[in-house]
Parts: sequence; structure tokens; C-alpha cells
Amino acid sequence: MQNYKILIRYDGTHYSGWQKQKNTLDTIQGRFERILSQLNGGDVEISGSGRTDAGVHAIGQVANFKLHKKLDKKYVFDYLNKYLPDDIAVTDIDYADDRFHARLNAKRKTYVYRMWIGEYSNVFEHRFLYTLRQLPDIEKMKTAANLLTGRHDFFGFSSVKKTKKSTVREIYKIVIKKNENEIKIIFEGNGFLYNMVRILAGTIYDCGIGKMTCDSIKTVFETGQREYAGETLPPCGLTLLKVEY
Amino acid sequence: MQNYKILIRYDGTHYSGWQKQKNTLDTIQGRFERILSQLNGGDVEISGSGRTDAGVHAIGQVANFKLHKKLDKKYVFDYLNKYLPDDIAVTDIDYADDRFHARLNAKRKTYVYRMWIGEYSNVFEHRFLYTLRQLPDIEKMKTAANLLTGRHDFFGFSSVKKTKKSTVREIYKIVIKKNENEIKIIFEGNGFLYNMVRILAGTIYDCGIGKMTCDSIKTVFETGQREYAGETLPPCGLTLLKVEY
Repeated sequence: MQNYKILIRYDGTHYSGWQKQKNTLDTIQGRFERILSQLNGGDVEISGSGRTDAGVHAIGQVANFKLHKKLDKKYVFDYLNKYLPDDIAVTDIDYADDRFHARLNAKRKTYVYRMWIGEYSNVFEHRFLYTLRQLPDIEKMKTAANLLTGRHDFFGFSSVKKTKKSTVREIYKIVIKKNENEIKIIFEGNGFLYNMVRILAGTIYDCGIGKMTCDSIKTVFETGQREYAGETLPPCGLTLLKVEY
Repeated sequence: MQNYKILIRYDGTHYSGWQKQKNTLDTIQGRFERILSQLNGGDVEISGSGRTDAGVHAIGQVANFKLHKKLDKKYVFDYLNKYLPDDIAVTDIDYADDRFHARLNAKRKTYVYRMWIGEYSNVFEHRFLYTLRQLPDIEKMKTAANLLTGRHDFFGFSSVKKTKKSTVREIYKIVIKKNENEIKIIFEGNGFLYNMVRILAGTIYDCGIGKMTCDSIKTVFETGQREYAGETLPPCGLTLLKVEY
């Protein structure tokens, strides 16, 4: 068996997310497994660094899978790109150590949440943006971002059900950039819980428009109660940028 | 009555083109007329500079319409953008002379046909590109483009049915640019017949891959027979860039 590591990008608009479901072709994982099983002549399982939600995009998703044989890398790369639809692409491939696992070994992930506020919508990129109706106060957003940075129990900032697994994560950095009509919030951390990035983005935005105060952030950390945090922003604004090992 | 001139952009992917059909909301014209009639309190007809086909995009489509009253320009602009879906936007507005008609007065139009050829697909822009399987010879494409430039009867390069109207048009310029994985063909002319740009792009591409020879171009002009011209390329690659008056 040979282990392969690939770099993937996708426009998630028309998919039910990464993780395989009943209708295989609705998910990114399902799309890959069908092509790889065909190449391998037998079932193949692919592991992504994380399960992006329905509608979320990726520029630098990482995944690994094992095939019976050590095939030429470029051959596997071309085979995948030949059969993948136009909204999914493999941008790099390498052989990986047998023990390499894209999800278990991930050390750091970077996501971007993109927002747009203009006199008119961004017609050609609206699939990758959340269109705002109200301009938030960037300084207030930065204050909220600072409070969220660091090592915390993020249970209240997630859609995770009660669990015995740790919900403590560390966010290394949250950067907010405004460039003309676009606002970007970039999150770097050692891992993110289910829906966590979208809820953090919603919390930062809600602080920016004065719909919630920064004190509520402390309350969420203290009580672990989801209802004190901001809204879950739509998936379209979210893109997985990078995974580090 | 006040005549208004607007500049429009749209991602045509999900529309049946510009021209109104039974299901109003499937077309760009239909979307505008519904909003404008609501604003005007009575039916409004909007005239576009041309009827882009289903799936064709626009950066600089021009249109005009008349309302009962002279309303504040910015108010009309904001009203339209508020009710338009995210894949259609008005980018400019102005009052126009009573006699101004976006289609009848158009003097020059510029279209771009975008093609992509790479190791993997352009995931985030594939909706605006035609993905090629074979790299064409750019010099051969330029030779074909030169033969198509000028004043000709383009009947054989269109999907027009036999008509008494003139099918003579003048193409001022066809520019071919290759930049890394993208090939652009830019067409400037005084007007284009039904499907003409997509057939010209197909003819230039077919000459580039050696599927047809430049001599066939002369045959189409001589005989007016569509079958000697190249294929009609898919609408997704086509964008209306500019209309001049």
C-alpha cells in the first residue's frame, strides 16, 4: 500500500460539504472516493484535514489516501483532475509516510471569512462572500477578535452537542482587514469545532454592528452557553486557506 | 416621462439570457422589469443594448427605461440594487435624452471570450471560462482572427434564419491574448448577429487546433453556409464588456 497526500481546492457552493453522505456525488469526499476506487480497482477511503460544512470553500484543503500500488504521482494527479468536476481540483500531490493522516496530524489551520459591503453586490464573487447590509465598526471587531484569541474552551462558540471530548482549542491569531468594499477575518488556530469559525465570525460581526457587546464574549466563555454568542454566518463566506503539519 | 440609462453587470450562469420569456424571473430583462414596475407603479419596459444568450455574462451591458417621473438618480440606483439578486448589479445610472435607445443607438460593442487550459481546472472562475482539452496554436488563431476582421456578410457565422434584414457587420478588431493558463479573444465590432461571437470564437479555436483550415473561413463568406464554420462554443466563456454610443 502507498499513502498519498494531496492539496485540494473547491468551490463548495453546490456540495453538501466534505463528508460522505448517502448521495455520494453531493460531497467532496464522495467525489474523490469514486474516482480513486476506479483507479485502484477496489474501495479507497480518503481522509480530509477537516470536514468543511455544506457550501464552504477551500483553497488549501489537505487529504490523504492509500492505493494498492505506488503509481507515478503525476499519473494519479492527472487522473484525478481528469475525472473531477470543474469546481474541484487537485493542485499538488506527494507520496506520504505510511503513518501520515491528514486529520489526526494537522497542527494548524487557517480560514478566511470574507464579507462584502458596497453600493452594489459583487456579482462575480458573491458565491465566496457574505453580503452585508450594515457597515460594522472595524475597531470594535478588532476588540472582539482580541478577546477570542488564545486558549479557551470554545464549546459555547460551536454547534457541538455535549461531549466527553475536549472542546478546548487555541486560536493563535485573528486578523481583520478592510480593503475597499471587502472585509476579511482570518483565523489561525490549532483546530476548530463544528461551526466554530462561522460563529466566531458572527460574534465579531455582531460586536461590530453593536448587536452584542464584548462582555457577552466573556459570558460565553464562563457559561459555555451558545445563546450569548453571535449568529452563525452563512457558509458561502468561509474558505479553508491552509493546513499545516 | 423620464428616460434613464444604466450600466449593468451580471453572472449569467443561472439565467435564460437577457430577453424576457414566460417565466419572467429566469431572465435579466424580466428581473429588471418587475422591480421597475413596482417602483413606477405601472408597467415599465427596459431595452438592453443586445440580447445576451442564456449563460452569457456582462460587465458593461447598457439599458434604458422610462419612468413616469424624474426621480433622484441615486434613489433609483439604490432601489434597483436593493431588490436585484446578488448575481445582477447596476453599477452606474444617468438621465438620458428622450430619444436615447440602448439597442438602436449602440455604435460599437466589445465582447471577450475566455478559455482556460491548465493542469487542473480554474475552480473559482470556471463559470466564466470555457475549459479546453487541447492547447491551440496561438499563431494559427491570429491568422484566423485576421481573416474574420473587417466588413463582411456574417450570415454563415450566425444562427440567424433566412432574413431580409442585412447580416453585414463590421468587426473592427479581434485581439488574442494568452496569459499563463488563460486565452482571451476580444471582439470589437459595430454589432453581432445571433450566436455570432460564440461561432467566431469556435472558428478561431478550431483553426488553432487544426480541426479546420483558414480556407474554410473564405468558403463560409463565399457560400454563407454555417456548416463550414467552427463549432458554437459554450456560453459560459462569453462576457459582454462594453457598449459604446
